[in-house]
Amino acid sequence: MKVAFIGLGNMGGGMAARQVADGREVHAFDLSEAVVGKAVAAGARGAGSVSKAVQGVDAVITMLPAGPHVRKVYSEEILPNAPRSALLIDCSTVDVESARAVAGQAKAGGFRFADAPVSGGTAAAEGGTLAFMVGCGETDFADVERALKPMARVVIRAGEHGAGQAAKICNNMLLGISMIGTCEAFALAERLGLSPDRFFEIASKSSGQCWSLTSYAPWPGVGPQTASDRNYEGGFAAGMMLKDLKLAQEAAAKAGATTPLGAQAAAIYALFDRLGYGGKDFSGVLQMLRGELAGLNLE
Amino acid sequence: MKVAFIGLGNMGGGMAARQVADGREVHAFDLSEAVVGKAVAAGARGAGSVSKAVQGVDAVITMLPAGPHVRKVYSEEILPNAPRSALLIDCSTVDVESARAVAGQAKAGGFRFADAPVSGGTAAAEGGTLAFMVGCGETDFADVERALKPMARVVIRAGEHGAGQAAKICNNMLLGISMIGTCEAFALAERLGLSPDRFFEIASKSSGQCWSLTSYAPWPGVGPQTASDRNYEGGFAAGMMLKDLKLAQEAAAKAGATTPLGAQAAAIYALFDRLGYGGKDFSGVLQMLRGELAGLNLE
Amino acid sequence: MKVAFIGLGNMGGGMAARQVADGREVHAFDLSEAVVGKAVAAGARGAGSVSKAVQGVDAVITMLPAGPHVRKVYSEEILPNAPRSALLIDCSTVDVESARAVAGQAKAGGFRFADAPVSGGTAAAEGGTLAFMVGCGETDFADVERALKPMARVVIRAGEHGAGQAAKICNNMLLGISMIGTCEAFALAERLGLSPDRFFEIASKSSGQCWSLTSYAPWPGVGPQTASDRNYEGGFAAGMMLKDLKLAQEAAAKAGATTPLGAQAAAIYALFDRLGYGGKDFSGVLQMLRGELAGLNLE
Amino acid sequence: MKVAFIGLGNMGGGMAARQVADGREVHAFDLSEAVVGKAVAAGARGAGSVSKAVQGVDAVITMLPAGPHVRKVYSEEILPNAPRSALLIDCSTVDVESARAVAGQAKAGGFRFADAPVSGGTAAAEGGTLAFMVGCGETDFADVERALKPMARVVIRAGEHGAGQAAKICNNMLLGISMIGTCEAFALAERLGLSPDRFFEIASKSSGQCWSLTSYAPWPGVGPQTASDRNYEGGFAAGMMLKDLKLAQEAAAKAGATTPLGAQAAAIYALFDRLGYGGKDFSGVLQMLRGELAGLNLE
Repeated sequence: MKVAFIGLGNMGGGMAARQVADGREVHAFDLSEAVVGKAVAAGARGAGSVSKAVQGVDAVITMLPAGPHVRKVYSEEILPNAPRSALLIDCSTVDVESARAVAGQAKAGGFRFADAPVSGGTAAAEGGTLAFMVGCGETDFADVERALKPMARVVIRAGEHGAGQAAKICNNMLLGISMIGTCEAFALAERLGLSPDRFFEIASKSSGQCWSLTSYAPWPGVGPQTASDRNYEGGFAAGMMLKDLKLAQEAAAKAGATTPLGAQAAAIYALFDRLGYGGKDFSGVLQMLRGELAGLNLE
Repeated sequence: MKVAFIGLGNMGGGMAARQVADGREVHAFDLSEAVVGKAVAAGARGAGSVSKAVQGVDAVITMLPAGPHVRKVYSEEILPNAPRSALLIDCSTVDVESARAVAGQAKAGGFRFADAPVSGGTAAAEGGTLAFMVGCGETDFADVERALKPMARVVIRAGEHGAGQAAKICNNMLLGISMIGTCEAFALAERLGLSPDRFFEIASKSSGQCWSLTSYAPWPGVGPQTASDRNYEGGFAAGMMLKDLKLAQEAAAKAGATTPLGAQAAAIYALFDRLGYGGKDFSGVLQMLRGELAGLNLE
Repeated sequence: MKVAFIGLGNMGGGMAARQVADGREVHAFDLSEAVVGKAVAAGARGAGSVSKAVQGVDAVITMLPAGPHVRKVYSEEILPNAPRSALLIDCSTVDVESARAVAGQAKAGGFRFADAPVSGGTAAAEGGTLAFMVGCGETDFADVERALKPMARVVIRAGEHGAGQAAKICNNMLLGISMIGTCEAFALAERLGLSPDRFFEIASKSSGQCWSLTSYAPWPGVGPQTASDRNYEGGFAAGMMLKDLKLAQEAAAKAGATTPLGAQAAAIYALFDRLGYGGKDFSGVLQMLRGELAGLNLE
Repeated sequence: MKVAFIGLGNMGGGMAARQVADGREVHAFDLSEAVVGKAVAAGARGAGSVSKAVQGVDAVITMLPAGPHVRKVYSEEILPNAPRSALLIDCSTVDVESARAVAGQAKAGGFRFADAPVSGGTAAAEGGTLAFMVGCGETDFADVERALKPMARVVIRAGEHGAGQAAKICNNMLLGISMIGTCEAFALAERLGLSPDRFFEIASKSSGQCWSLTSYAPWPGVGPQTASDRNYEGGFAAGMMLKDLKLAQEAAAKAGATTPLGAQAAAIYALFDRLGYGGKDFSGVLQMLRGELAGLNLE
């Protein structure tokens, strides 16, 4: 299988490498020559442009920063140059409207398209254990799943075009809320003289259980190894969480949904980001709530 | 084992019956004669007063509405009348200060005491599958566990006196936050055209996973059978959740903890309660967010 | 002075009538023939299209629902047909980006343009007592002021293009927050046994003073006559406040501003709107907080 | 008139000095000998204890940190030692319940009592321009007003016992909300390219007008001279605002009032306080929202 991979940033770089590792011929492109060089070192073929990268491939996978980039790259470069038979998969996290707009254009051009944003950080990208949430035609799903497999722990179809983005946005809004909730609970436990260990053990077995607690505990030394054990380095950056929470708030505003905690979570991450901590793992918001930002060294 | 059981309401009634079912001699008391009658029908011995109920017993278990009741019953009736050897266990959900105050008085009187609030609703009380979070001296824990066993799925020691209440308060604050977060995510999914079923399946396997979603999904027909499938009857009343969230806010205010989402969750349940829905299951807050309160019949 | 007036809804109708009353020749257009009829009855000349309305006029005033309408009407109808000398003034409330985009197009076409959203409801529109917040070139301001005068209590220049919209959005976000804050304070006063009258008198003279309290008290019978005295009919609709709060949230998200109370205010009005009360005056949110929605009859 | 003044802190010291300046004989007491010394230097007579201070006086004025202090000083020292004819006035800001409890005890002892918390900071205390919100019997009000006059710009009766505290709590909750709202509006204006000066001028004349904006603008150099012009030194400390917001939240929780923005305002000030800025003026929260805490030097 020949695959064009467009966008080789923190996530895209690891994902492209998994495609290579699976034995596929990967045509890699990014605006930064440095990251193209890395992809080439990992076994990909560097392409001088998107137009060249997509020529003659079986699948195109894109991993870009935001909706406007996706709209532009598809309408100006991919749709005019890729073979009609190529399966187009956008793994970026963007607004539902952009996903549907690009899907509409692709369909009009005779292409099969899927929006397939991911859940999981750079470690999952490098390890090939991402979760993909897919919006695509029902009959196209088997092919989409095959194309994504080398990068995936799980691939789930969320529904028609745009449903992948909708699922990602809703999931991550809930994630942001439950992470802050978990941090607040730890912060309150501390002040009430309840040890973080004990709170972790008890809540993990009770109705307060959530992924942010059991799999990603924000208190250092508690639960499995996470970013909190590395002074909140690596993992899922607070600035990325903020981006997702803003997408959720824009979607809620346009669609007429009421999301008071989602709005508050966005405001709290905005505050954390404005204070200079957008590059830290999103679980680091615990230290802001505790008033311990001084310990959260910024380099 | 002879057990005095004080407080036979929705929760206490079922709990006392489990003690009887285990073969213990239960001396039951409540201010309402009607519920004492029920306990007698279930095999307990009715006691005319707390003082009489606690005479000669091996353990005293209390299940009362709030801190002031617990303080009063222990200082005026239990401590003056129970044998020094009796193990005293308060299963009520109260503020940490009240728990510590009663523990101090009990200790001064030569008693062993434990605060042991529960997680789980009336069904768990009747089925003997409650989770107990215990604050007590380390050497007393084995006896506390034995006393609670007939009513318990799990008994965990949270720490010294007051730690049981602290754990309950922190857990339930997190529960309230993640339930509202789950409801917001479902409400947003709906407006974005993502089916509730698909959202459930995807988020259950992703980072948005939480007990409120996977074990207690607020959307009718999604996930395991819950109160949402019975028009939000039974289960854990929103008014009770509000009580716990207020305890958390008072504790946070006194202890100096910062809990923005906890504060918002309390405000949202207060709104739901003021609109007349305090008797409905706490997952019914979904219908308020969706603007569908009309379907949430009040009898 | 010949004026084209485009958009004759609740606000625009009254505003156009003020232009007529001032002796100007008003060419009125709206998609609804019924409201054009009203304007004609008030002394305006009906125009069959925007293109016709703007021919040969000295000024064009637009009052439209949202950004997309403004962008479309200016680029497709006004800019191609109005005389280069005409002063173009958009009084709609729209996002800052749309205001700047239209201003840029107008400037490129050789026109003078101003964004001039208003503060004040339908009564102020009919009475000619609106406040205008204007974004325009400094040298154009005198002409803009003259054009708006018949409709205005005050005309203030906020800065360059887009600044009028920015001022409107910031002001109304603060208005939404202080109205809910005022409602919460009344609701708390009531529960603490403090009479609404006394609270009004005291806070009006203290640091809690705000327009929402002193000029627009949400408690019926307190302060000057307002919508609260008419069962929250007329005035400034909650749905319109929600629209403005969403504009603020979108602007904050894009610009990277942190607005936690603004986000919460938007969520509270969204809830009020979803419960069916979007057509009521925005001070009616008091009754939701008090749990007294039943008294807020919907017709 | 002989006046006992108990509590000579930042506020009490200035208030006692105003009593002296009015020609009254002031018997001053505080646990800190240093501040008693200051009062003596200002012309008061130092008293060695509360019991001695209150002997033979016409009025007792107290200015203490919180409810428990007020309860204790009145029941243990003032009520047993003051002459029955003395008018007792508590100017502390405390919870409504404490105010009512002390009033009840005072009444039972044959005393006239008033709760009379103040609005205004240390400058107003020193200048004698405080606003007093009074809860007392209707017939006692004239005497209360006379006693407070040397310290007051305005004295308003809020109602029966406790109403003074209720008014203070409601007013200050609204103040906290509108200050944060004002800060958010300035922060958003900045990011939208609207100058703070212009925003101030426009909103001051529009529906966003509030005391926090017009009389206490948080942006340095805008509006009248305030703490923001002194790097947020002096004025009304954020930690004191937090105390009042917590009182409001506790009152709302107990009384069953729904105050979502009040809860959020408390959380935001808690965050500011936990980050170390509790001693700064409460308008300094602007700098946290802007992500400019580094400029807010802590000494």
